[in-house]
Amino acid sequence: MKNTSSSASPDESLPTAASVSPDGEIFPLPQADDYAGEFSRLKLIADEQRAQGRRIVVVMGVGFVGAVMAGVVADSVDKATGDPLYFVMGMQRPSTRSFWKIPSLNRGIAPVEAEDPEVAPLIQRCVLEKQTLIATYSYDALSLADIVVVDVQCDYQKHTLGNVRNGHADIAALEDALKVIGEKIPPDCLVLIETTVPPGTTEYVANPIIKKAFERRSIETDPLLAHSFERVMPGRNYVASIRDFWRVCSGINDDARERVVRFLSDILNVAAYPLTVLDRPMESETCKIVENSYRSVLLAFMDEWSVFAERNGVDITKVIQAIKVRPTHANMLFPGPGIGGYCLPKDGGLGVWAYHTLMGFEDDLFKMTPMAIDINDTRALRAARMTRDALRNMGKIVPSAKIAVLGISYREDVGDTRYSGSEIIVRKLTEMGGSVVAHDPYVKHWWEIEKQDTYPAPGQSWARFFRNQESLADWEVHQDLAAALAGADAVVLAVRHKAYLSLKPEEVLSMTGRPIAVIDCFAVLNDEDIQTYFELGCEVKGLGRGHIQRIKDRVRWGHRN
Amino acid sequence: MKNTSSSASPDESLPTAASVSPDGEIFPLPQADDYAGEFSRLKLIADEQRAQGRRIVVVMGVGFVGAVMAGVVADSVDKATGDPLYFVMGMQRPSTRSFWKIPSLNRGIAPVEAEDPEVAPLIQRCVLEKQTLIATYSYDALSLADIVVVDVQCDYQKHTLGNVRNGHADIAALEDALKVIGEKIPPDCLVLIETTVPPGTTEYVANPIIKKAFERRSIETDPLLAHSFERVMPGRNYVASIRDFWRVCSGINDDARERVVRFLSDILNVAAYPLTVLDRPMESETCKIVENSYRSVLLAFMDEWSVFAERNGVDITKVIQAIKVRPTHANMLFPGPGIGGYCLPKDGGLGVWAYHTLMGFEDDLFKMTPMAIDINDTRALRAARMTRDALRNMGKIVPSAKIAVLGISYREDVGDTRYSGSEIIVRKLTEMGGSVVAHDPYVKHWWEIEKQDTYPAPGQSWARFFRNQESLADWEVHQDLAAALAGADAVVLAVRHKAYLSLKPEEVLSMTGRPIAVIDCFAVLNDEDIQTYFELGCEVKGLGRGHIQRIKDRVRWGHRN
Repeated sequence: MKNTSSSASPDESLPTAASVSPDGEIFPLPQADDYAGEFSRLKLIADEQRAQGRRIVVVMGVGFVGAVMAGVVADSVDKATGDPLYFVMGMQRPSTRSFWKIPSLNRGIAPVEAEDPEVAPLIQRCVLEKQTLIATYSYDALSLADIVVVDVQCDYQKHTLGNVRNGHADIAALEDALKVIGEKIPPDCLVLIETTVPPGTTEYVANPIIKKAFERRSIETDPLLAHSFERVMPGRNYVASIRDFWRVCSGINDDARERVVRFLSDILNVAAYPLTVLDRPMESETCKIVENSYRSVLLAFMDEWSVFAERNGVDITKVIQAIKVRPTHANMLFPGPGIGGYCLPKDGGLGVWAYHTLMGFEDDLFKMTPMAIDINDTRALRAARMTRDALRNMGKIVPSAKIAVLGISYREDVGDTRYSGSEIIVRKLTEMGGSVVAHDPYVKHWWEIEKQDTYPAPGQSWARFFRNQESLADWEVHQDLAAALAGADAVVLAVRHKAYLSLKPEEVLSMTGRPIAVIDCFAVLNDEDIQTYFELGCEVKGLGRGHIQRIKDRVRWGHRN
Repeated sequence: MKNTSSSASPDESLPTAASVSPDGEIFPLPQADDYAGEFSRLKLIADEQRAQGRRIVVVMGVGFVGAVMAGVVADSVDKATGDPLYFVMGMQRPSTRSFWKIPSLNRGIAPVEAEDPEVAPLIQRCVLEKQTLIATYSYDALSLADIVVVDVQCDYQKHTLGNVRNGHADIAALEDALKVIGEKIPPDCLVLIETTVPPGTTEYVANPIIKKAFERRSIETDPLLAHSFERVMPGRNYVASIRDFWRVCSGINDDARERVVRFLSDILNVAAYPLTVLDRPMESETCKIVENSYRSVLLAFMDEWSVFAERNGVDITKVIQAIKVRPTHANMLFPGPGIGGYCLPKDGGLGVWAYHTLMGFEDDLFKMTPMAIDINDTRALRAARMTRDALRNMGKIVPSAKIAVLGISYREDVGDTRYSGSEIIVRKLTEMGGSVVAHDPYVKHWWEIEKQDTYPAPGQSWARFFRNQESLADWEVHQDLAAALAGADAVVLAVRHKAYLSLKPEEVLSMTGRPIAVIDCFAVLNDEDIQTYFELGCEVKGLGRGHIQRIKDRVRWGHRN
């Protein structure tokens, strides 16, 4: 295992006290004597804003969710007057990995790339026009807060691929943030945890931490803690998925509950998407984990029937289409080459971990939840195996083959590559000695491969589970399909991006220049295309698509079995 | 284990050559010399009907699905002329268990009890008014058929409770039916299998059987086999769930496919609920198994989170309500005390069995599908355990307690008791020495308990997994709630029947005459009622309802934890 996760400097030639943005701009980290000035700046702004009747919201963590949440809060207005209700300070620790987000945000530039055309203008509008949003690296912002929104990441670290039980929730960053919050906030500040956390975190972890800090500060009131999870969906409706979508929330006591309900009612479209208020944070924390584990289980369930279909001449995608007609089964999905994205591969792990670690149970209560993650995490290996077998049917082996993977994001028509199945396909085929290239119209840089120690959080790539990853050092995602396909022996169709759905066999072969092995991981090919590939001397295999063998038999032997 | 399954005579005092209907009427079985006359009758009718341009449909098996399917076919008319298109002969083997259905049907009486007010008039109309439906015990009807619809039961026999892998598909009755079909039908008769079967049955079992029979009859054409599964839902829309609902079908060759599409288009509401035509029977057979296993997995997944909730002060039913708001998660369900009904406990077993037995694979491909059934099958044991614990909290033990189970059907507001969770609760508490009574407004006779060897198919009860079931010999389902509750120490709320949702604690206690242990298996109680029960000195526990302990603490200690 080469690439063990670490938070080392992104590039050894840089001074360690700088942070480099993904597009290469270098930002020196703040020095010790910058802090006093920064706080004066913040204090002045807060006083001005408060004089205008606005409350101060500090959003801790301006990553994928926090940045947009900060924008949504800063963009919200009093429904009667149209005036902004909140002034937002986005706060991010000044680490080499993340500090660049602060100056970036302060220029009105969203620190996350998104397909949603609303993201960039939202941030720009709030920072430059409305002037309701700034960013800071200083924890002292907390002392000015009426409300703190916690969007600090809480990852789950797996130690083995395909065994989520062998791993742990990585709540250290969250605990650190909570300690600082306890030390800095005014006693009546509402602390709203939005991070997806192990159930029990608000009551069993956050509350004791803040309470102890309050005791040291001789504050006698109880902390006002609340929990509410977002249901962010990467893609073209990213902002709407935060603002115009149903929310669940809860408070640790009546005060906190009332405060969080009021806050969320101010900033979200609760008229169209009513709030659900649950009895306690553990309940809403459980909600999020169950919600995502549900989806994970649905997908893992399809894995076994997908393999059944492959082995018995059945096209599972037609089976799914036939079943989805029923409204009660309309959420059935084909799992593709594994289940990626930031949430589904980890959230169930947080739940199981909490049960054992926070709640202290030893029994094996959880069966389906961890099993689903294990099945989903290893499904992409099947696509790699299928590539090997398809190549072998053409008299080739992986180490002497050029393999083009089309689509590297975790789902169709987005550029989000976190924990994508394609990453596992690429790493596994690389481990097996293949020469792998990739193409994706939505992804310019594949950080999990190119700079996995820098831009994803440490450990947020599948790298540590594979050997021989050195050849990926100079990796580059092709934007030009013809270049990616030139001379390829195998083409792995990994994601249902629009551009791939209309790709005809003749076109592909004109780019590869030779008959190829085609591995369809996501029902990209229709039956006609499959037949054409066979007629053109190619080999085709597909996850869940057992009928391909029947098409092959018909082309090769002229009969229907 | 007392009640091992057998197909013995229902009552030893009767002649073995008679069949007794559930309401007690005795029908002597037909004798050998009755058959010639029966065939003459059928032949005459068939000729007359054919002269009117109608095709003859034989429905084999007039059980829960077959009887209503026969009615739907017999009721269908030519959309242009309004004339009936089909004449239907419902056919049932003259066994002591089932023969009574034939004379019953011929009087215009539906042989199944149903909550749907459409069932009885449908059968009556077709038999007595339209005269498009008769019933017969003679296989010779097959020789007159243009179409045979196979609705013969195919059960799955479990040998252990909680280990579906240890069991087998019981396809002998189906194979027998197919042999007779092969011997009797005209060569161009369409054979439509509607029974839920192990995937592969049409191609790997039925086709070879009928082909061999055709060979013996020197018929050279291929059998016209098709498969289409119904999606019957017990309850008030029973007929509609057959006629006005989406269907999936497939044929073994082009002819069979065209024939089945035409037939289903004639009899079903395909304008509003379009047909899905799949490529081969294996595909549509797989469809049905995946569809039901999906639901089974969704429910089993909730079991572990239900237990998590119980142990950690969370009300899982509120969590589910909060999640169901999302359209993609709207089919999330609380599992209640296990998952009953005829299909979900067995269909996954048919799939796993087919994989090993018909397809010859030895590997452990299936994980979630069988695990879900095992979890669901044993969930009701948890309700029994909870009853024990709630009683113990009141200083009582099960053997000295009277326990009233409210609701015995497998879901709310229907009378279908097949494989219900309540049966397991009753049997388990009986095994533990409890004195158990039951009440259900929808069920007069609980055949799985009262005459389990007679009216459910043999083995279709949970009886064989429990000892000490003798005390259930004189079992009677109470229709009078006060009588069921009088003197009860514990009340198990097992089904969400309407009548139970409005039952107030004071009312219940006025009937029991004492404080009781209440076990809420299906979120029947709201928080207010739970609090009242505690205030009245009762003990309350509930599946998935961990917040009950918090309510208890509040009542007992006056604080909120």
